[in-house]
Amino acid sequence: MSKPLFDLRLEMPARGSGNVQQALHHQLRAAIVDGRLAAGARLPATRELAGLAGVSRSTALAAYDLLLAEGYVEGRRGSGTYVSARHGGPAGDAAGASLAHKLAAPWRDSAPARPSPPLRFDFRIGYPDQRQFPFDVWRRLTARALRAASRASGAGSDPQGDPRLREAIARHVSHARAVACDADAVVVTAGAQQAFDLLARCLVTPSRTTIALENPGYPPLGVAFAQAGARLHDVPVDEHGLCVDRLPGRIDLISVSPSHQSPLGVTLSAARRAALLAHAQQADALVIEDDYDGEFRLGGRPLDALQTLDRGRRVFYVGTFAKSMFMALRVGFVVAPHWAVPALVAARLASNWHVPSINQAALADFIAEGHLARHVRRMRGVYAGRQQALLEALRLHFGERLQPLPSLAGLHLCTALHGATPAERWVPPAAQAGVRLATLSASTRPPLSLNGLLFGYGLIEAAQIDPAMRALAAAVRGL
Amino acid sequence: MSKPLFDLRLEMPARGSGNVQQALHHQLRAAIVDGRLAAGARLPATRELAGLAGVSRSTALAAYDLLLAEGYVEGRRGSGTYVSARHGGPAGDAAGASLAHKLAAPWRDSAPARPSPPLRFDFRIGYPDQRQFPFDVWRRLTARALRAASRASGAGSDPQGDPRLREAIARHVSHARAVACDADAVVVTAGAQQAFDLLARCLVTPSRTTIALENPGYPPLGVAFAQAGARLHDVPVDEHGLCVDRLPGRIDLISVSPSHQSPLGVTLSAARRAALLAHAQQADALVIEDDYDGEFRLGGRPLDALQTLDRGRRVFYVGTFAKSMFMALRVGFVVAPHWAVPALVAARLASNWHVPSINQAALADFIAEGHLARHVRRMRGVYAGRQQALLEALRLHFGERLQPLPSLAGLHLCTALHGATPAERWVPPAAQAGVRLATLSASTRPPLSLNGLLFGYGLIEAAQIDPAMRALAAAVRGL
Repeated sequence: MSKPLFDLRLEMPARGSGNVQQALHHQLRAAIVDGRLAAGARLPATRELAGLAGVSRSTALAAYDLLLAEGYVEGRRGSGTYVSARHGGPAGDAAGASLAHKLAAPWRDSAPARPSPPLRFDFRIGYPDQRQFPFDVWRRLTARALRAASRASGAGSDPQGDPRLREAIARHVSHARAVACDADAVVVTAGAQQAFDLLARCLVTPSRTTIALENPGYPPLGVAFAQAGARLHDVPVDEHGLCVDRLPGRIDLISVSPSHQSPLGVTLSAARRAALLAHAQQADALVIEDDYDGEFRLGGRPLDALQTLDRGRRVFYVGTFAKSMFMALRVGFVVAPHWAVPALVAARLASNWHVPSINQAALADFIAEGHLARHVRRMRGVYAGRQQALLEALRLHFGERLQPLPSLAGLHLCTALHGATPAERWVPPAAQAGVRLATLSASTRPPLSLNGLLFGYGLIEAAQIDPAMRALAAAVRGL
Repeated sequence: MSKPLFDLRLEMPARGSGNVQQALHHQLRAAIVDGRLAAGARLPATRELAGLAGVSRSTALAAYDLLLAEGYVEGRRGSGTYVSARHGGPAGDAAGASLAHKLAAPWRDSAPARPSPPLRFDFRIGYPDQRQFPFDVWRRLTARALRAASRASGAGSDPQGDPRLREAIARHVSHARAVACDADAVVVTAGAQQAFDLLARCLVTPSRTTIALENPGYPPLGVAFAQAGARLHDVPVDEHGLCVDRLPGRIDLISVSPSHQSPLGVTLSAARRAALLAHAQQADALVIEDDYDGEFRLGGRPLDALQTLDRGRRVFYVGTFAKSMFMALRVGFVVAPHWAVPALVAARLASNWHVPSINQAALADFIAEGHLARHVRRMRGVYAGRQQALLEALRLHFGERLQPLPSLAGLHLCTALHGATPAERWVPPAAQAGVRLATLSASTRPPLSLNGLLFGYGLIEAAQIDPAMRALAAAVRGL
């Protein structure tokens, strides 16, 4: 039963079903402390409150008495009950004042994060098509895991990850990507981002460790390492991937996305892979291999993972299920050299213990029963079709103006924008026309090597791609 | 269809159902890179392999040719095919060598984490009784969230937390704990530990920020702040909670668990609450309020949260659903002053983006539909019964030797062990007798103020408590 009281809703238990007076007291107090009842506001007379809340007058009186005793309200003789100034809403005292200068420097000027509004044609990168995911299978496996949990004590979770899941991941990566590992080398993480974060914690000594990063690259990786106190060293990328000959001679960490460079989409050549590992050996550096989109290779034979070539000594291989399954699952993993596993697990404990166990159990079954391999195989065809549609639409509507970079994998395409107009200038008119784009500059630290636009095709169906490009072409005609 | 090959199992697709040659090649390669086929091992002749795998001889030959081309195997004229030395198992080269000196100092000597084996009577602290949780309700709400996800794009998750969940949490804490907040002040985290971790990231300037911690206290909180570079300052705790008059005059952060001190179980008195906030104001310090077990108050009226008294200016209120629901859910939250919210969200993005969306959606419904309040109410009775049984069994089997500290809340009891024997000496014979105990010293940095044992009753049923105490008494008789 709900009744409005000023702008409040009092939700009272049915008479006789519980402590009505306590419910009334709590709700009035909550309204005062969260400011719905502001300092100085006059409360209704007890008779009125009793009527509004559907309680007896003595109950209403008792609730007021408690609030008076606690100092939340004041009675002014003859004129009723008021919210006391001390306990008024946040506007009533200094509660609104900012202590933001107390924040640690890296976070002091963080802008509020606001999810972007939906647009008709969404070419955002990094998202797979969640609508194609077999949620019916996932629901069944989740229900199974929940049934098992209801019979389990819940104690004894392994912070390295559910052993069954680690086993499934080890088999999955050895078969799909020829990554040499067993379950002991796998650390389950809350998505690839947590993998980067844990690696940054464990491998960075503040102000001493330098990491080489691809530029353009994947900015959140740089944020994690910068926040841990690493010095960042940008290395350019060309059509063969990271320019290994531009790596500094003295370097502690090298981060690279060899399968499908993030965001250019190119593949690190076999020669560069060998050269990179030789360089790492010579510099005694460690390598972080982000196997970004590695599963969505659209043609040709995949090249060996660096981890495979290195034999698991100095390469940390990072994978995720955010793209091969769905983003919001938030499960990824690191395949780590054995010497680093205890440190990563300890950092994981300090950070957030472990990934929710039910999700881990369901995922172990999903992989072990072949659903993951099946889904990836199917989606490879879906994404190949979308890439094809995108290439055709680009040719048709933009001709030479937008030149796609070669890409054999993944969920997006990078295009070079020819002419004098910076790609950023396309974004507002595109959004006006219902098209969400990403610019290459958002993934580049200056200087910008390529004026480009990124087109993700995880969120857009093949049939929508031509209409989207037509709308985009019309929107940027004058630019 | 599965057939053993040496110690391998080859899982071949049915003939004609897919790329049989590729499957064979991948599985052999995986076995080589992960060491199941060691360097120098002789592979079966192609005719033999064809028979073992149920493929044609030309398929077996083609798979070997690929492995030869890639350098994984070598053919020695006339004597067959061998795993090449370069690509042998990890034992074959320097892959086993440790580069552990490259780990950052705080993590260098991390011991491997191993989950402890189950014992018959488990008094571990910090775990609720998962078997009592209404998993049938949770399964229904999860299935509903999964159905919604299957129709959604999956883009646009809010890193601060699902707005519906933040709304539900804000209402929950205003009603249950009189914590002043709205949904904008709530940041959803992966359990309380991630809340501490994010606060440490955002509030600590390395080597400059000092945090006052309860001693005895909750060690993982200290780990998070130490790892962020904070200086730790221990403050003693007595029967009225944190000894506020022992707080240093110059202090940046004060961490406190007022509802049910972790691990002593005492409640911070009303006078100390006021004094603590006055001290914080004077020192211009921030306060981290760990509302540890605050929902499982077993008697009396709860005292106001510090956050309520402070009006949300300098207090960060940390809550979790790990105890009120189940540990493996891994969802908690911070109610933060508004000036700190963007920083916490930015740190969250750098750390692991967000809690899995399906879990957040199901939890929002679980709270909003009243299941959480109902479950907590029921469990309060269950835990009260267990605490009662524990107090009786302690009296019966240990008399004056184990003296329980007063505790009106929570899932465990702290007891003082009188006599000369250190509590640690009870642990091995107890484990021998099937009883898992925790010592107070494990939650104390030296000096130890109290020789004590902790008895959690989340994992043990009321009827098991007397037999457990009887077994324990017998096991420690000689000590």
